[in-house]
Amino acid sequence: MNKKQVLRFGLPKGSLQDATIEKMAKAGFNISVSSRSYIPYVDDPELEIRMIRAQEISRYVEHGYLDCGITGLDWIQENGSKVHEVGEFQFSKVTRQPARWVLAVPENSPIKSVKDLEGKRIATEVVNLTRKYLRKNKVKAEVEFSWGATEVKAHELVDAIVEITETGSSLRANKLRIVETLMVSTPRLIANHTSWKDAWKRKKVETMAMLLKGALEAESKVGLKMNVARENLQNLLATLPALRNPTISNLSLEGWVAVETIIDEHVVRELIPALKSAGAEGIIEYPLNKVVY
Amino acid sequence: MNKKQVLRFGLPKGSLQDATIEKMAKAGFNISVSSRSYIPYVDDPELEIRMIRAQEISRYVEHGYLDCGITGLDWIQENGSKVHEVGEFQFSKVTRQPARWVLAVPENSPIKSVKDLEGKRIATEVVNLTRKYLRKNKVKAEVEFSWGATEVKAHELVDAIVEITETGSSLRANKLRIVETLMVSTPRLIANHTSWKDAWKRKKVETMAMLLKGALEAESKVGLKMNVARENLQNLLATLPALRNPTISNLSLEGWVAVETIIDEHVVRELIPALKSAGAEGIIEYPLNKVVY
Amino acid sequence: MNKKQVLRFGLPKGSLQDATIEKMAKAGFNISVSSRSYIPYVDDPELEIRMIRAQEISRYVEHGYLDCGITGLDWIQENGSKVHEVGEFQFSKVTRQPARWVLAVPENSPIKSVKDLEGKRIATEVVNLTRKYLRKNKVKAEVEFSWGATEVKAHELVDAIVEITETGSSLRANKLRIVETLMVSTPRLIANHTSWKDAWKRKKVETMAMLLKGALEAESKVGLKMNVARENLQNLLATLPALRNPTISNLSLEGWVAVETIIDEHVVRELIPALKSAGAEGIIEYPLNKVVY
Amino acid sequence: MNKKQVLRFGLPKGSLQDATIEKMAKAGFNISVSSRSYIPYVDDPELEIRMIRAQEISRYVEHGYLDCGITGLDWIQENGSKVHEVGEFQFSKVTRQPARWVLAVPENSPIKSVKDLEGKRIATEVVNLTRKYLRKNKVKAEVEFSWGATEVKAHELVDAIVEITETGSSLRANKLRIVETLMVSTPRLIANHTSWKDAWKRKKVETMAMLLKGALEAESKVGLKMNVARENLQNLLATLPALRNPTISNLSLEGWVAVETIIDEHVVRELIPALKSAGAEGIIEYPLNKVVY
Amino acid sequence: MNKKQVLRFGLPKGSLQDATIEKMAKAGFNISVSSRSYIPYVDDPELEIRMIRAQEISRYVEHGYLDCGITGLDWIQENGSKVHEVGEFQFSKVTRQPARWVLAVPENSPIKSVKDLEGKRIATEVVNLTRKYLRKNKVKAEVEFSWGATEVKAHELVDAIVEITETGSSLRANKLRIVETLMVSTPRLIANHTSWKDAWKRKKVETMAMLLKGALEAESKVGLKMNVARENLQNLLATLPALRNPTISNLSLEGWVAVETIIDEHVVRELIPALKSAGAEGIIEYPLNKVVY
Amino acid sequence: MNKKQVLRFGLPKGSLQDATIEKMAKAGFNISVSSRSYIPYVDDPELEIRMIRAQEISRYVEHGYLDCGITGLDWIQENGSKVHEVGEFQFSKVTRQPARWVLAVPENSPIKSVKDLEGKRIATEVVNLTRKYLRKNKVKAEVEFSWGATEVKAHELVDAIVEITETGSSLRANKLRIVETLMVSTPRLIANHTSWKDAWKRKKVETMAMLLKGALEAESKVGLKMNVARENLQNLLATLPALRNPTISNLSLEGWVAVETIIDEHVVRELIPALKSAGAEGIIEYPLNKVVY
Repeated sequence: MNKKQVLRFGLPKGSLQDATIEKMAKAGFNISVSSRSYIPYVDDPELEIRMIRAQEISRYVEHGYLDCGITGLDWIQENGSKVHEVGEFQFSKVTRQPARWVLAVPENSPIKSVKDLEGKRIATEVVNLTRKYLRKNKVKAEVEFSWGATEVKAHELVDAIVEITETGSSLRANKLRIVETLMVSTPRLIANHTSWKDAWKRKKVETMAMLLKGALEAESKVGLKMNVARENLQNLLATLPALRNPTISNLSLEGWVAVETIIDEHVVRELIPALKSAGAEGIIEYPLNKVVY
Repeated sequence: MNKKQVLRFGLPKGSLQDATIEKMAKAGFNISVSSRSYIPYVDDPELEIRMIRAQEISRYVEHGYLDCGITGLDWIQENGSKVHEVGEFQFSKVTRQPARWVLAVPENSPIKSVKDLEGKRIATEVVNLTRKYLRKNKVKAEVEFSWGATEVKAHELVDAIVEITETGSSLRANKLRIVETLMVSTPRLIANHTSWKDAWKRKKVETMAMLLKGALEAESKVGLKMNVARENLQNLLATLPALRNPTISNLSLEGWVAVETIIDEHVVRELIPALKSAGAEGIIEYPLNKVVY
Repeated sequence: MNKKQVLRFGLPKGSLQDATIEKMAKAGFNISVSSRSYIPYVDDPELEIRMIRAQEISRYVEHGYLDCGITGLDWIQENGSKVHEVGEFQFSKVTRQPARWVLAVPENSPIKSVKDLEGKRIATEVVNLTRKYLRKNKVKAEVEFSWGATEVKAHELVDAIVEITETGSSLRANKLRIVETLMVSTPRLIANHTSWKDAWKRKKVETMAMLLKGALEAESKVGLKMNVARENLQNLLATLPALRNPTISNLSLEGWVAVETIIDEHVVRELIPALKSAGAEGIIEYPLNKVVY
Repeated sequence: MNKKQVLRFGLPKGSLQDATIEKMAKAGFNISVSSRSYIPYVDDPELEIRMIRAQEISRYVEHGYLDCGITGLDWIQENGSKVHEVGEFQFSKVTRQPARWVLAVPENSPIKSVKDLEGKRIATEVVNLTRKYLRKNKVKAEVEFSWGATEVKAHELVDAIVEITETGSSLRANKLRIVETLMVSTPRLIANHTSWKDAWKRKKVETMAMLLKGALEAESKVGLKMNVARENLQNLLATLPALRNPTISNLSLEGWVAVETIIDEHVVRELIPALKSAGAEGIIEYPLNKVVY
Repeated sequence: MNKKQVLRFGLPKGSLQDATIEKMAKAGFNISVSSRSYIPYVDDPELEIRMIRAQEISRYVEHGYLDCGITGLDWIQENGSKVHEVGEFQFSKVTRQPARWVLAVPENSPIKSVKDLEGKRIATEVVNLTRKYLRKNKVKAEVEFSWGATEVKAHELVDAIVEITETGSSLRANKLRIVETLMVSTPRLIANHTSWKDAWKRKKVETMAMLLKGALEAESKVGLKMNVARENLQNLLATLPALRNPTISNLSLEGWVAVETIIDEHVVRELIPALKSAGAEGIIEYPLNKVVY
Repeated sequence: MNKKQVLRFGLPKGSLQDATIEKMAKAGFNISVSSRSYIPYVDDPELEIRMIRAQEISRYVEHGYLDCGITGLDWIQENGSKVHEVGEFQFSKVTRQPARWVLAVPENSPIKSVKDLEGKRIATEVVNLTRKYLRKNKVKAEVEFSWGATEVKAHELVDAIVEITETGSSLRANKLRIVETLMVSTPRLIANHTSWKDAWKRKKVETMAMLLKGALEAESKVGLKMNVARENLQNLLATLPALRNPTISNLSLEGWVAVETIIDEHVVRELIPALKSAGAEGIIEYPLNKVVY
């Protein structure tokens, strides 16, 4: 049979759309979204991209309309979708903190723990997650779906909210206090169970997972290159994070070597002073597109 | 004679302006356009930049108001300009497809080939190219200049249009069908014939062409670096595109080498899995500013 | 004592804000500014960032509300602030010219030098700098504070202005002529004198200065890598700027070496043709994040 | 007791926000929304405004957090809210057609009536309205909540959608066909049952309803004024819509009267030619702020 | 025959689009343009609107694709279109000056009249109008089509330009001098000759012309109302522009009358002081939607 | 002498610019500001407009560069400008509250009155007004010029601020408390003393003041028109604000009169219910352009 194989891939539409398309491009898949057509162009004839709200992707993957997709663990669980999880992607570069769904109340609210919610009213976008959490804590409370601007509601429309946050700064600006954390969520690549059993589709998904992981990995990593006298080499190597072996190459200048390594960008600020103390010279840091171990 | 030599260089204004200025910067020429002055600043005293519509650049190069400029082959031919073509630049990174001027009609039009245009009316921005094409096909039809929104006209104002497209997605969104392709167009660096005979100007143009080519080339290329055991080296080299010799350097670790090469970004997605199979470790991909062979 | 040490750091708000946050990120400090909170988030618990107008930073550093900050030499002197200057940062990448405060008049004004200002009226944002300059030149003139759009005033509201410029193009577009230059200003990292005596704060500031310098340095530098036959090596090295020793490593191909160096981006356009003449092959230029000598 | 009486009033946030605030201003209540504060300023100390999503207003009116609010009949019914309906407001000025929730399918879908939905999947923002409609028609189908971009889903993610439309043009542009209309919705002013029993609140709400109605009425009405000879008066009056008595005043010019009336703006285009035929002179049309019969 | 009669009406797309749609609304025809559909909605089933570039409307009216349309006299003549001119509309409200196509040159150009253009090169968007003008003046010069930014070209790319202007301020800002005026252009309502012979279409067009005229007229007119003692009436009437008879009605207060008139808005600033001197009291000015004499 | 008389008029540039130009248009003076020219076009050859920062207008009026201008009382006093005040204009339509400069501190600050500022540091844009206020209160404190974002400074950079506010909502959003009000400021039309003595200029300024006043007055006024049976007339007149005599005209319908009056828009909401009770029928409210008593 020579029918063309195609993988239907769902990406989150909306606020995450540009970032996702940029990361797909780094992984090697160039997508261009036209305002006139709801099917984006992608420069891989084996792929069909669909932009769908993060909230709905797991549902359409489960039903088989999509072979796979990228969405958050939160919405997979909120929808109770039965899908195969292929991989987890790392946290936001800026804060290096995952998204958390938290129970929040006004700063001066008497509510101190989930137990204090008995008989109260809670607004949230994740109604199922919240109800499950209340059941687990044996608390009876009314949970209502919030269409947006949930933070503002905590002050007079409801008693508490369950809302998403990274650093908590938006909650603080709204004078809200975090009571408890319901769940921590990170982006996942998920696949439909049937698609996952198809050999061609599975291989295609796994390759994409590797490339995406390589691209995302590279966002928080940098390349570091420096020269060092051979006599200071052991000293310098002790300074570098033990994680991976650096590449050491001989320089034509007698007694000197070049050391090159890949490290987490956020440790560079502590590492560079240490490297200089250890005898490194001509340190340069350069950006990466992909890192595949 | 010590009069300062200057090269007057035309760049396309409008939708391509930002991209062009960015590419010039990658080539090493920083341009800043002020809303108050029609002459952009450039950090090279030997250059004078003029921003002019792509449609008109070849005309002003031919007349000698500009020594050289960048514009599309389409407009050079539409204007019938007699200029020296210094170089051709590569296609759009996103689609890797060149711009094409195509004859298009509504999906359900009876027109199936250029021959069916006899006695019809055609709207286009490239009136001369279209007339020439009709003559070549011995078809008599009325061609009228379209001031814009040409795609919409095909449905009721005219019988067919000649329009530019890369992926055809805008035509599809307008429910138009491509009948034939009139020409494929790519950006060209062109020079005035007299300027090209001036030794200083010619050398300046050639250097700029090399730098621009190096910068554009680098946009679709990436650097790839990996470590491999010497025993797997031949295996791995067989995997790499034959195009160029990779740089192989000895690592201080006995029996291992570092392999570094420059490849087309769009093959990376197929290459990385193959390289891992061939024994590559610690593969990293990094971005390039310029590639000059 | 285990109280957490914190450094309060002022960054210029307004037109320079985005550029500064980008440079801080390159230095390794990720800042995110929320429209809801006036205290930006930074991913270093030892830092507290404040966004303050460049005009005011030196004043708040002097008073001790800030431990240190980045602002221009112009505003440090205009405010007459007594602060410790930790370091100077390089010029704008685009123009490679520092900001200058200049005395400007309409093109056809009879004023030819500062001496001609006797009894005249001058509008400027830097009232103190201007008055000091007049005193130094023994000229008596009225200086009035300009709240903005100073350039327009020169034509009828006042006799002359003192305004900032890089390339002078905005002044030219306003048909103004530069009479004299009052001062050249570059960005400085400054510290409060007391904070500077605190060992922990001083070390923190010095590390940040090194990282920022490395990041800014990298903006105008690029990496250059090429292969060359050993017999052409001396020839090629003579072509490279003498500034730093290039890294030369042996290639596995007998008789060839790889040469790698860091150079100013703006000399690349002259260097590449020369390198090719000297026998370099496979020249690639790549971007840098940081350069620390 | 003399505690200040206050009416808490909910207005729809989001796409309707600006239009609503403008209409409130026409009714005589000036509201200014600050990006920094979630409580808008209103120049009536007896009012407290809350901007809340149209979807949620009826819920908060029912619970008593709001005394009254403006929202659509659709969301009142979707939420099943038990509230007092004070008044209905007229249709959009542009289309003069009320919003309708319709069942829509792709143009070439075999679905011709609600009966054909048996066993199918439907996406909609109004899950409850849709389920009720299916029950009424004794059809069993799966209804799932759509977070947005519902129109696009009809082509491959679901079998049908229930979506809102005025003219149907957005559905047509998406190549969808309307199968049936589920409900017609217009804006309503609703009040909490308890608030409605409070004499002060009820009077305040009724006055606001009258002023809002007067302002909305005025949007689709205009004033028309003309002079006519007394002998042509009966003729002219026969031409005017019978709806209201025009105001007829004597002119100082013997035998002439001025006729002034208020009519629907959209009949003006047919009326003016008729009035001229009937002898009207100097016809002027002027805008209105409010019309209270 | 009961086939629905429809008039196909072309309106200018682009920079004039919003203003035109607003004026049509004032005339009583509400149009809403959707980004998804190229056919705008209009609340009159007898109309079909098409948005087309002003440059092209006369061509499509001539060919019969449109029954009628609004465009400038300039483009009707540039295209040499044979169409029926139904009416002319008044000038811009702001400047009260019609658009003019003028011959312009740099301030210091030696060109003083059209005669000096012999052998020169001229850039313009109206190639045919310019050539005709040169022929009339027996001047031979090269005329080339300008795709935009024509004003900038006058300084070095060509010798002169023919460009459109109202107040000349944009030309002055570009340091250009007006040499001569080629033509004055105002908006025209034009009809296809065949459509004009169709009784139904002609009546429809004439009604629309009357309503549009009434709406445009109203833009530069205002209503003025005042009270005056009968003894001062003649005095006051002498002050009012003689153009039209004011409406004079008796007040219930003995000896006083109300005077009401419609006047050009731009004379109000001179009229009001005069009216007060003549004894007018309680003068109010109010806006108009339409004025039909 | 027939030299053309011209009045040079300064209008506030920046945030108030659009509103000012709109009000000038209502007064009958159409201004169009070009981004290319710093001198706006105005359709009155006797006027020359200059757009200048509100902060600076009084200074240039005092010096005679401008004949007159519109600015706030605050900046006239801050600059200590000696100018003739021609007229005061009314408050903002939305809040009906004048701008106030207030002393503000963090909500939890111990500062309760101006007396508590002894030895403190205050940031403000109105340094002179603040110093004068402190002197009057015999308080010694340091006052420093704030370049913007003053509200944020109150929390840690200074002890108190002097800032402008209308409703106080921005201060509240920043968790600041108003301690005292320094001054209330409204817009003023001011003239240079010498210009004011010139008969022609003075008349021109007075006419403009009358027209501007008429236009501004009209913004907060509306026309109200209703029919009433003669027997209810006295009753109805008693309901209307005593401010001005309404216009009463006889209707042709025996025993009925039409009543027309001009009232403050913000009393309409209380008045309409009362008018209906008093027997008014067919009440309509219409907008005004100008009101000149």
